[in-house]
Amino acid sequence: MGQKSFLYETVSEQLREQILRRSYVQGEKLPSTRKLSLLFGVSINTILQCFRQLEAEGLVKASPRSGVFVTGPSRSRDMAEVTPLFPMLPVEVSLSERILEYMKPHIDHSVVPFGIALPAPEIMPVNQVAQAFRDVLRSAPQEAWGYTHPHGQERLTRQLARRSMNYPVPIAEQDIVVSNGCMEAMELALRAVTRRGDTVAIESPTYYGALLALEVMGRKALQIPTTMDSGVSLQALEQALRHGQVTACLFSTNAQNPLGFTMDDQKKQRLVKLLARHQVPMIENDIWGDTVYKGSALPAKAFDEEGLVIYCNSFSKSLMPGLRIGWTVPGRFHRRVLELKQVSSITTATPPQMLMGRLLETGYYQRHLQTLRVSLENQTARSVTLVEEHFPPRTRVVPPTGGCVLWLSLPESVDAEELFHRALSQGIHIFPGTVFSPGRRHHNCIRINAGTPLTRPIEQSIAKLGELTRQLSGN
Amino acid sequence: MGQKSFLYETVSEQLREQILRRSYVQGEKLPSTRKLSLLFGVSINTILQCFRQLEAEGLVKASPRSGVFVTGPSRSRDMAEVTPLFPMLPVEVSLSERILEYMKPHIDHSVVPFGIALPAPEIMPVNQVAQAFRDVLRSAPQEAWGYTHPHGQERLTRQLARRSMNYPVPIAEQDIVVSNGCMEAMELALRAVTRRGDTVAIESPTYYGALLALEVMGRKALQIPTTMDSGVSLQALEQALRHGQVTACLFSTNAQNPLGFTMDDQKKQRLVKLLARHQVPMIENDIWGDTVYKGSALPAKAFDEEGLVIYCNSFSKSLMPGLRIGWTVPGRFHRRVLELKQVSSITTATPPQMLMGRLLETGYYQRHLQTLRVSLENQTARSVTLVEEHFPPRTRVVPPTGGCVLWLSLPESVDAEELFHRALSQGIHIFPGTVFSPGRRHHNCIRINAGTPLTRPIEQSIAKLGELTRQLSGN
Repeated sequence: MGQKSFLYETVSEQLREQILRRSYVQGEKLPSTRKLSLLFGVSINTILQCFRQLEAEGLVKASPRSGVFVTGPSRSRDMAEVTPLFPMLPVEVSLSERILEYMKPHIDHSVVPFGIALPAPEIMPVNQVAQAFRDVLRSAPQEAWGYTHPHGQERLTRQLARRSMNYPVPIAEQDIVVSNGCMEAMELALRAVTRRGDTVAIESPTYYGALLALEVMGRKALQIPTTMDSGVSLQALEQALRHGQVTACLFSTNAQNPLGFTMDDQKKQRLVKLLARHQVPMIENDIWGDTVYKGSALPAKAFDEEGLVIYCNSFSKSLMPGLRIGWTVPGRFHRRVLELKQVSSITTATPPQMLMGRLLETGYYQRHLQTLRVSLENQTARSVTLVEEHFPPRTRVVPPTGGCVLWLSLPESVDAEELFHRALSQGIHIFPGTVFSPGRRHHNCIRINAGTPLTRPIEQSIAKLGELTRQLSGN
Repeated sequence: MGQKSFLYETVSEQLREQILRRSYVQGEKLPSTRKLSLLFGVSINTILQCFRQLEAEGLVKASPRSGVFVTGPSRSRDMAEVTPLFPMLPVEVSLSERILEYMKPHIDHSVVPFGIALPAPEIMPVNQVAQAFRDVLRSAPQEAWGYTHPHGQERLTRQLARRSMNYPVPIAEQDIVVSNGCMEAMELALRAVTRRGDTVAIESPTYYGALLALEVMGRKALQIPTTMDSGVSLQALEQALRHGQVTACLFSTNAQNPLGFTMDDQKKQRLVKLLARHQVPMIENDIWGDTVYKGSALPAKAFDEEGLVIYCNSFSKSLMPGLRIGWTVPGRFHRRVLELKQVSSITTATPPQMLMGRLLETGYYQRHLQTLRVSLENQTARSVTLVEEHFPPRTRVVPPTGGCVLWLSLPESVDAEELFHRALSQGIHIFPGTVFSPGRRHHNCIRINAGTPLTRPIEQSIAKLGELTRQLSGN
């Protein structure tokens, strides 16, 4: 593309592209004639000619003295209508297609948010945390500017280490690697201890994000039976370990998502010992641990004498999701995880680390947790009552021990995916049980987020869901 | 570990661990007696007994009415002395050991920072950006709280798309995926288009972080000859492509690190056409593109009609490293990259995205670049003059076209690794040429960061380096 073609038609075409592909949308002002003339290396007259052309096409309108504004195409033109520039490549996917479909309604703020598992901002200290963030930036702008060590900022890692004060096997500052949320922690862990084609033992049902990770990374999943009343079956796990099928495990011992089950300390210890006997590492997803309101929230890591547990956690569920601050304690895999972290993102952003360091140092976070646990326990208990009231017989629900989701086992005849669609058409977003395991298990189960305060419309939505379930169950 | 063992000795042992492993350091206050009694589930008396024990050991001191403070071990006890909890696992490493060794002096703030390539905070708008960050948090705390879409916040991606206004092949908002810095962008790209064992063509010399990534991910590197005067050899590349040895390329076309070379538009187009002919994707690391002060800073991506270029960039070099905001434009690999991003870190932190969106929207970033380019051009030009003045004959240096590093080819007899050690003993941190390629090439080259304003001590350090080089060259 030589200098010659950069004339009137070319520049018009470029501007048209910017508008049609929504880099500039209706009502926005285009750069000035002078700026565009410099950018494209053409005369002011050429730019004016382009504007006239685009105006004739109904895409822009010149407003005397204030500039040229985009007038079309109308906002109703959806992003999806834009033709992709390139043919999309086929990739190996199976579950992820479905998961993404079921996640999608979340972005619509008008739906009832029973989908994504998250305490609502209404019960969170949004303004106070923003204020603390501003204080941190005001008091130490220089510190916020630069990189931190790849393993994280000392002020934060020291505070994270102190959380292990009462662990039988405590954690030291230098054992910790700060990550971009719990997801990066788990992903680094998976890459550190498994390879493509390896098998990872998971709970069934389990967090769909873990399943996505296994799929995208080409790891196989071995489903260990897991129940609302007793968690993951150690007997089944032992069998799998004895057969040497398992390269690593990926479990949650506290307020397991989606079941809301917390193992007692004895079971946690038995699990860790079992793994030690077979020398199989376990990735522990403890993202809901800080929300546990019933039972002991010590993680399995607290009993890990051999360094086989790779502990993963973040503040995304217990405080601020947008912060993306998590951490991992990789035990004997520390060096490999740190290496992977360095080439994944070098280090985690500094200002959010400083904020979390501050909130832990001052005890603010710990005080917040006390309030949060009370809110979540009340909301989940009230939601359980409403489910029992409105859902058909043979619906089973157990009050969770932490977190903010309810796992509902519906009558066998109910197709949860069908229920998802019917609920969505009524403006209610839920997750069908089938996304919590590979291969469409739990087809008659759903997960409901109870992170939102139970206002009248929320209560009515639970009743509505119960009614839809009744219809589907033939009751 | 039953309830019984959680008594005086156990609790003392736990507290001792916390102090010896530096979760609490000298001068810091331990939690209150009441808090510890709750945490460990033992009586207040037991905690007091523990304090007496630790005081006898010289680790803490009780101060009436204010609490119990850590008094030992002394601060001189280095982290390195702490025995690691677990035996370290052997991992496949070769270059990374050396690179980490050569990076290490960077954390010592007293060394002359000729090592890491970075404009010094002194020439950056640290306070203004912190102020803008606080404004963003003040005006939209709710927005800052939650997750953004995995591909990034629309306000930012739209601004990023507009940067391509004058590209022959422009970029649309939905082509972009926001990342945790340029490193995550490149890592996602590498994972999207290559597998373990595949070969990636790289410049020689190239950015050591790229080499680390290849090593940690088990990819092989094919070194394409690259010179200060003409950049990467397209002839050599074509030969490699014809032999089908190459799965992907990883190049920088603007202010290449470490050579500081920028391809002209014609060469960029020839490169893109060559890749298209062989249908081989290229990962373009454009992290220095915004700093180019001589030549055209259009990236190769600007000419990419087939979607084979995976563009990677960030604001870490041109603005704020601690922000960790980068992005990628993966062309036809968009879907795979987005999938990998979702399971790597779900999405990038919201507040830093909002800040960059704001700084682009207001034109602040673009204005800042104009100032930055002038500073960098002056600093590098002046540094080149000083090198020519102080280094021995047969030293070769070419003024870079952007960025802030000088690549020095020293007389053949000079061992750059030896020079690194001698310079460090004088408090000067440089990078030896051997870290910029696998297999100890460029043994007589060094890279110098010229990002720091040329104060008298900095100038003297260049002179000192020249003197050390003379000694090593026998001149």
